[in-house]
Amino acid sequence: MLAITAVAGNVPLDLTVTNSLALVELAGREDVPVYRGAAEPMVKELVTAEYVHGPTGLDGADLTPPSLEETPGHAVDQIINIIESHSEPVTVCTLGPLTNIGMALDRAPSIAGNISEIVTMGGGFFEGGNTTPAAEFNMYVDPHAADIVFRCGAPIVLMPLDVTHDALTTTERLERFSAMGTAAGRATAGMLDYYQRWDMEKYSMPGGPLHDPTVIAYLLKPELFTGKQVNVAIETEARLTEGMTVVDWWGVLNAEPNAVVMNEIDDEGFFNLLFERIGRL
Amino acid sequence: MLAITAVAGNVPLDLTVTNSLALVELAGREDVPVYRGAAEPMVKELVTAEYVHGPTGLDGADLTPPSLEETPGHAVDQIINIIESHSEPVTVCTLGPLTNIGMALDRAPSIAGNISEIVTMGGGFFEGGNTTPAAEFNMYVDPHAADIVFRCGAPIVLMPLDVTHDALTTTERLERFSAMGTAAGRATAGMLDYYQRWDMEKYSMPGGPLHDPTVIAYLLKPELFTGKQVNVAIETEARLTEGMTVVDWWGVLNAEPNAVVMNEIDDEGFFNLLFERIGRL
Amino acid sequence: MLAITAVAGNVPLDLTVTNSLALVELAGREDVPVYRGAAEPMVKELVTAEYVHGPTGLDGADLTPPSLEETPGHAVDQIINIIESHSEPVTVCTLGPLTNIGMALDRAPSIAGNISEIVTMGGGFFEGGNTTPAAEFNMYVDPHAADIVFRCGAPIVLMPLDVTHDALTTTERLERFSAMGTAAGRATAGMLDYYQRWDMEKYSMPGGPLHDPTVIAYLLKPELFTGKQVNVAIETEARLTEGMTVVDWWGVLNAEPNAVVMNEIDDEGFFNLLFERIGRL
Amino acid sequence: MLAITAVAGNVPLDLTVTNSLALVELAGREDVPVYRGAAEPMVKELVTAEYVHGPTGLDGADLTPPSLEETPGHAVDQIINIIESHSEPVTVCTLGPLTNIGMALDRAPSIAGNISEIVTMGGGFFEGGNTTPAAEFNMYVDPHAADIVFRCGAPIVLMPLDVTHDALTTTERLERFSAMGTAAGRATAGMLDYYQRWDMEKYSMPGGPLHDPTVIAYLLKPELFTGKQVNVAIETEARLTEGMTVVDWWGVLNAEPNAVVMNEIDDEGFFNLLFERIGRL
Repeated sequence: MLAITAVAGNVPLDLTVTNSLALVELAGREDVPVYRGAAEPMVKELVTAEYVHGPTGLDGADLTPPSLEETPGHAVDQIINIIESHSEPVTVCTLGPLTNIGMALDRAPSIAGNISEIVTMGGGFFEGGNTTPAAEFNMYVDPHAADIVFRCGAPIVLMPLDVTHDALTTTERLERFSAMGTAAGRATAGMLDYYQRWDMEKYSMPGGPLHDPTVIAYLLKPELFTGKQVNVAIETEARLTEGMTVVDWWGVLNAEPNAVVMNEIDDEGFFNLLFERIGRL
Repeated sequence: MLAITAVAGNVPLDLTVTNSLALVELAGREDVPVYRGAAEPMVKELVTAEYVHGPTGLDGADLTPPSLEETPGHAVDQIINIIESHSEPVTVCTLGPLTNIGMALDRAPSIAGNISEIVTMGGGFFEGGNTTPAAEFNMYVDPHAADIVFRCGAPIVLMPLDVTHDALTTTERLERFSAMGTAAGRATAGMLDYYQRWDMEKYSMPGGPLHDPTVIAYLLKPELFTGKQVNVAIETEARLTEGMTVVDWWGVLNAEPNAVVMNEIDDEGFFNLLFERIGRL
Repeated sequence: MLAITAVAGNVPLDLTVTNSLALVELAGREDVPVYRGAAEPMVKELVTAEYVHGPTGLDGADLTPPSLEETPGHAVDQIINIIESHSEPVTVCTLGPLTNIGMALDRAPSIAGNISEIVTMGGGFFEGGNTTPAAEFNMYVDPHAADIVFRCGAPIVLMPLDVTHDALTTTERLERFSAMGTAAGRATAGMLDYYQRWDMEKYSMPGGPLHDPTVIAYLLKPELFTGKQVNVAIETEARLTEGMTVVDWWGVLNAEPNAVVMNEIDDEGFFNLLFERIGRL
Repeated sequence: MLAITAVAGNVPLDLTVTNSLALVELAGREDVPVYRGAAEPMVKELVTAEYVHGPTGLDGADLTPPSLEETPGHAVDQIINIIESHSEPVTVCTLGPLTNIGMALDRAPSIAGNISEIVTMGGGFFEGGNTTPAAEFNMYVDPHAADIVFRCGAPIVLMPLDVTHDALTTTERLERFSAMGTAAGRATAGMLDYYQRWDMEKYSMPGGPLHDPTVIAYLLKPELFTGKQVNVAIETEARLTEGMTVVDWWGVLNAEPNAVVMNEIDDEGFFNLLFERIGRL
């Protein structure tokens, strides 16, 4: 793990920096530098989602303020430096708006050649969006950055709502996190319990969809997911559909595939992986 | 049944007029007038779909040219006249682009008050589109007319691809139409056999989706379908998503519901209804 | 003069019908039928301009309510009927949004073949717009109808703000109308005096631009105007520039010319024509 | 003069870097560092204008290849470093697409606070565009960067086509450059002679508009120009009007002014300034 970069998204940048540091401490991975990135999307103005995740962005986790400090240097510069200087191709994982990586690709387009894979949580197609009927939050917040990423040429794996809505945080699953008896288990359970309320009410689901861990789960166990190599374009212009991931699942456009879009998840296997990994912390 | 109006859509207007007349003859319903409507969408230029339905628009049906003639009068005028003069509210069923009814609503907006229901085959949401990744054919061809219809105030029932993709023309079902031994049965089987090839290849489905009869099936047996009263808006502007039915299924927009969007079908019951009705012809 | 059709524009339709009847009476031309047309633009919702023309749409003219009544029949139908049945090609003059003629062209596209010329007051290019920075009022209100008209194939002569802003209602000119001592002269002076206030303040001009009479003046004395045959397209989609007449004055698009766009006026000759004609009433 | 940064625009980046170095040598200002910037616009793909300026971007100037080398460091980083570290507010002058400064503002929004003025050649309003009917080249190439700049909060002075089309390179003026008998005079005359041909043919003007020197002329002699503090927004979305500088000259939008837009130039004074300054080299 080379670095974590924070970006404005669910909550403003100051909070995502603090949350990143607190989670790094919780996981005992103080060796990983946390860099501060973009405070605003590339072109649009910032939209946040405190109505889902609470005013801190991690409500329910009851994290203590971190003593760890952010590492000096701007996220965009560090992304460029790390990818340019690393001898092996680097994997980029994104759990929020694509602003940092989009700006890095604008500033240094050639880094796309040393990226082995961009694994991205965001978008949706058969599931539609969660922020507007057509758009998922991360894509809606910075569609221009997403557009740049999806046209950069590096291999992309997309974890859309179609996958995460099949990975639900049921009561039984939350209890397994709580029962770990560790700080990490408690924080995980508390945070998931907090934000699942919003989705359970909205979708009448028996639990909340677990979005972000799908990205790392894919790196650890890609066999948990199935999908398809297709073309994905980002709608950046439209009144009603801005930020939509327009997935050409059926190949009607004769456009070059640029991403593997996942649409199925082994949710039992996925949660077992989480139980095992978070249980170790 | 007060009238049929033809509109340019899968094939140009001359062919949809001829096909309407041929089907009216086949069904022995020469009492129903067929009116010629719009040859072009309201604002866009016409896009057709011979690649699905063949150059005649009903390839495979082997229909004989009709001897019946179209009734004089323009479809748009007749829609207005019929709805304005009818003592009871009128049900409008659409199986193609919404150009005729859109133009009638432009010309005489007050007819919306004497429409009991507009039952429309078109759009898609969890299924996406079939013409572009985002848009279904009927909506894509005339998004402006669709926009007018969805804002007209009359009750709307939408039969999107989400429903029709669950009503597949399997081999067994086609055989039941053939086995009727009637001209109507043969034409139905031939036509469905022709066009299912395109969808079966595209979607790797075991049969083709049966779109248009869902509209009449709903009138005969609404209990075959389940859905939800939601807001639907039409994207008329966007490069990638033009003609998309933006269905606010989860109610994130706080917009007034304007349509019942169906998302489930009792496909066995639906085909049984078709067998029974077409078997009678 | 075959007919006048009223359309919603500066004020709602009821008022533009009444105003048309009052002006027909004032001019002593009760032989010309006035037909009621569209109450709303084709696709957009109506925007009006009482802030310029006052709540009646003709404030300052002090017209008495007309005793003349509108002729039965819808404007769109009458436009079609008149153009289709007239032995000679018909000239269409528009002084408001293009909704009526746009709807007529949608309903009966072939009438374009029997139109000798569409003379239209609207749009602007070097002058920009008057309703938004990019769009003139008539085009802004119904850009979709304008788009249909500019693509219909009939010859078009456009009188944009570039022309009308050079035809100013100065104090001296208003006095000449007043001095006629006729009802028509008084109404003209009163109406122009009312609405010039808005433009004089906005543009710091010594008078108000005289828009609509340029259309008829062109028919009477085309030599008053000079312009150029160029391509004009209507922006129907954009957030900031919706309704803009995108005039390819310099021919950078290699698009087929579809309109003569006037950019110069002999304003002395123009007002002399008005004095002479209104003086006769 | 703190630095020059090159950006892709009229020609690709390699050529604009070389041209910048050659001009720095020609002017004997080897003390000014030249930094390489963005090779592509922020979101769009690059469009160039060899049809105006020739394959080198400076055809007609007959410049010898520079021996001077570019200074290491990326333009975007250097813009940030210079503005952040300078004790006095910095003036930013742009003669091409706004990509470098747009990316710098994205990466470090706070630099807007230490910019005294952004003086920009680009856009047009009463003159329309020169690349499309609505858009000037620099704005058309990177409308997203322009959008960021016009919303950044720093004071902006815009030199649009409305100004530069009144500053024509007549034969007499070109002869004065030639007659200087210096390398700089010859290069200026040659380059202007080359590219004026395109504009003279297009606009039927007696000379070519002189665009870029208006920016520096404004810094040296602001009294050469007159204009107005107004709101300017950039159309980033539209099919026909993308990249348009939507100048609210008449203040119809009630939007906060964010730029001084020049619309008049003392062209005699402007060319005299050029004669004097280029004559010194």
